[in-house]
Amino acid sequence: MSDAPAPARDRPTVRAAMGLPVVGMVGGGQLSRMTHQAAIALGLSLRVLADATHDSAALVAQGVVLGDHTSLDDVRAFARGCEVTTFDHEHVPGPLIESLEDEGLQVWPGSVALRYAQDKIAMRERLAGMGVPVPAFLPIATARDLEGFAHHNGWPVVLKAATGGYDGKGVWVVGSLEEAADVLASGVRLLAEEMVPLTRELAAVVARSPYGQAAAWPVVETVQQDGICVEVVARAPELPEDLAVAAPELALGLAGALGVVGVLAVELFQTADGLLVNELAMRPHNSGHWTIEGARTSQFEQHLRAVLDWPLGDTDTTSDHVATVNLLGPADGSDPRGNLEAALGIEGVDPHFYGKESRPGRKIGHVTVTGTSGEDVERRAWRAHDALVGEQGRGR
Amino acid sequence: MSDAPAPARDRPTVRAAMGLPVVGMVGGGQLSRMTHQAAIALGLSLRVLADATHDSAALVAQGVVLGDHTSLDDVRAFARGCEVTTFDHEHVPGPLIESLEDEGLQVWPGSVALRYAQDKIAMRERLAGMGVPVPAFLPIATARDLEGFAHHNGWPVVLKAATGGYDGKGVWVVGSLEEAADVLASGVRLLAEEMVPLTRELAAVVARSPYGQAAAWPVVETVQQDGICVEVVARAPELPEDLAVAAPELALGLAGALGVVGVLAVELFQTADGLLVNELAMRPHNSGHWTIEGARTSQFEQHLRAVLDWPLGDTDTTSDHVATVNLLGPADGSDPRGNLEAALGIEGVDPHFYGKESRPGRKIGHVTVTGTSGEDVERRAWRAHDALVGEQGRGR
Repeated sequence: MSDAPAPARDRPTVRAAMGLPVVGMVGGGQLSRMTHQAAIALGLSLRVLADATHDSAALVAQGVVLGDHTSLDDVRAFARGCEVTTFDHEHVPGPLIESLEDEGLQVWPGSVALRYAQDKIAMRERLAGMGVPVPAFLPIATARDLEGFAHHNGWPVVLKAATGGYDGKGVWVVGSLEEAADVLASGVRLLAEEMVPLTRELAAVVARSPYGQAAAWPVVETVQQDGICVEVVARAPELPEDLAVAAPELALGLAGALGVVGVLAVELFQTADGLLVNELAMRPHNSGHWTIEGARTSQFEQHLRAVLDWPLGDTDTTSDHVATVNLLGPADGSDPRGNLEAALGIEGVDPHFYGKESRPGRKIGHVTVTGTSGEDVERRAWRAHDALVGEQGRGR
Repeated sequence: MSDAPAPARDRPTVRAAMGLPVVGMVGGGQLSRMTHQAAIALGLSLRVLADATHDSAALVAQGVVLGDHTSLDDVRAFARGCEVTTFDHEHVPGPLIESLEDEGLQVWPGSVALRYAQDKIAMRERLAGMGVPVPAFLPIATARDLEGFAHHNGWPVVLKAATGGYDGKGVWVVGSLEEAADVLASGVRLLAEEMVPLTRELAAVVARSPYGQAAAWPVVETVQQDGICVEVVARAPELPEDLAVAAPELALGLAGALGVVGVLAVELFQTADGLLVNELAMRPHNSGHWTIEGARTSQFEQHLRAVLDWPLGDTDTTSDHVATVNLLGPADGSDPRGNLEAALGIEGVDPHFYGKESRPGRKIGHVTVTGTSGEDVERRAWRAHDALVGEQGRGR
């Protein structure tokens, strides 16, 4: 049984000048910014609901509306001006999205699907119920719950906030009840997970349209440091053929079963026993930034095509090897953009800056390099990273 | 002796938030629009001096200033808010640009170079003086001048407005004095040129920075219909090796000798006797749109790098074959964007819409296809064209 909503028949048809639809994105971060870049080529101009005029996307788009993404009034007024509304993040409350849907507004992904990207407990329970391999988990409220979980699964245990976490925030690895005390006392809704003995992390990124058309990019390796993705390598090097097939199939199956519309990124643990699903994101995702240069259709254009129910684009790679390295604000508070000229001097480096103020550890951009040798593209991407950020931020 | 201005030492340093410079582009057309797309990745936000809020670039950029590009007050006020000012077209009067330069503002290309893209008589005379092959030409004012020119070069004669022409406008092919009468009486400053027995048209696009760094993309074939470019094929098929080398060398030589900063497009006639220079454009150019998907660095990013005096990017191709087909508004006044979904269903088609109202013969967008077979990429690009515009607009 699928949760997928039926294709809408009676869409409101708010149309911009020139006969093309108005797409709105809630959230003014870098995902909106890069989606706007893709929208320009399609003849569209993304409308953005931003918190502030200095938001990443608000700096570069024409149709910026300031508002609070947790306010029904603000989001509703915004969505009423758009033919389709989509999201740059998962933080719009589910009941708010349901209200928009009840009004007949087109919102993708819909609230039914989006719940599994917003609530890790709902996601784990749903996936386990479908027989999809996930780490051992338990929703917990008390020290006693945690003790029972650790008794069966061993220490350390990974505690996760059920909602609201990102980039390592909302995740705590605890070695004992004592270490967990503060988190348990914080009142945050929690999920306990086994510490998976993983070989590495992968991501399978796909897109699906309301009509049900779906397309997958090749599986990538994601390199994490302190819970933040620092590098993405496409395709994932030395991935066994069975996993290279199984991972996109798994992601496409989830997109269909959950009724996702737009881009779905499935973060995966590769273990000696196969793949486990770590997280889901229902929007363009850091693990798909490489597609801007490295694939025939970028995840940003594909997300637009999907939410508009237009034909999806070709997901073939344009190069044998692609490396994307994230740029995190250096610990000394300096701004890597001061070193841009040095980085541009490195051959074949495509920089992407998000227009965000540099703060220690904050993702302010990324660089991508494409080429014919995996070692060479990674080497050049890290050289550009080092020229911009310095070696202190090096991931591997 | 070169007209090249010396690299400026004392630039005004108007800087946007985040430590990056503000680049302004005068003109709100599709070249500004696509330059803004490239600016976003570099962490910049293009500031645009547009005629109207519905201009192509004004629809998608944040920093839009409305003003008249022929008004010194308007352009000066705009340029004072930018670290570097550049152009989407050639229609800003030279004396106005000189005034900005006298004030110490950074304007690229500079007035000295830009004159040769603004005034065809100045360009022809300068190139002929340098020994660069050009069609036989003569500035003419009277029927007697034209008669003399035709006596030596034969009819038909090509008459061109010295300034202000584009896309076939400002060009008249006349077979007799009688046919030339209206144009001669119009008071337009005119140039007569021989009708060159050409094999086909080519374009060599290069970029040059104030520091003097320069880079060339491969030579392309441009297919014209009624004086408008309808298709660009990269690389130019079956181009003899000596011309494939000579054309970029010629363009790089011109960029240096004329002191061009930014992109320089050199339109060329290929004849049985070799190459002749047709026109110069000192900005991103229709014959370089293929670089968005087809080259490691697009002409739009390169133009920004050049005017900022940043290191130029890699001009290697990403594919063996690239075809770009322009989309001109159909004769029946319909809007091709109504057919977008059909075109997106054709494999590997990258559409680019300029946000411009469809009018018969007006360039409102282009499609690009990359691939491993020249025949296949042209076929798919024309299929997309036909799906959008209909076969009536077919170029070949």
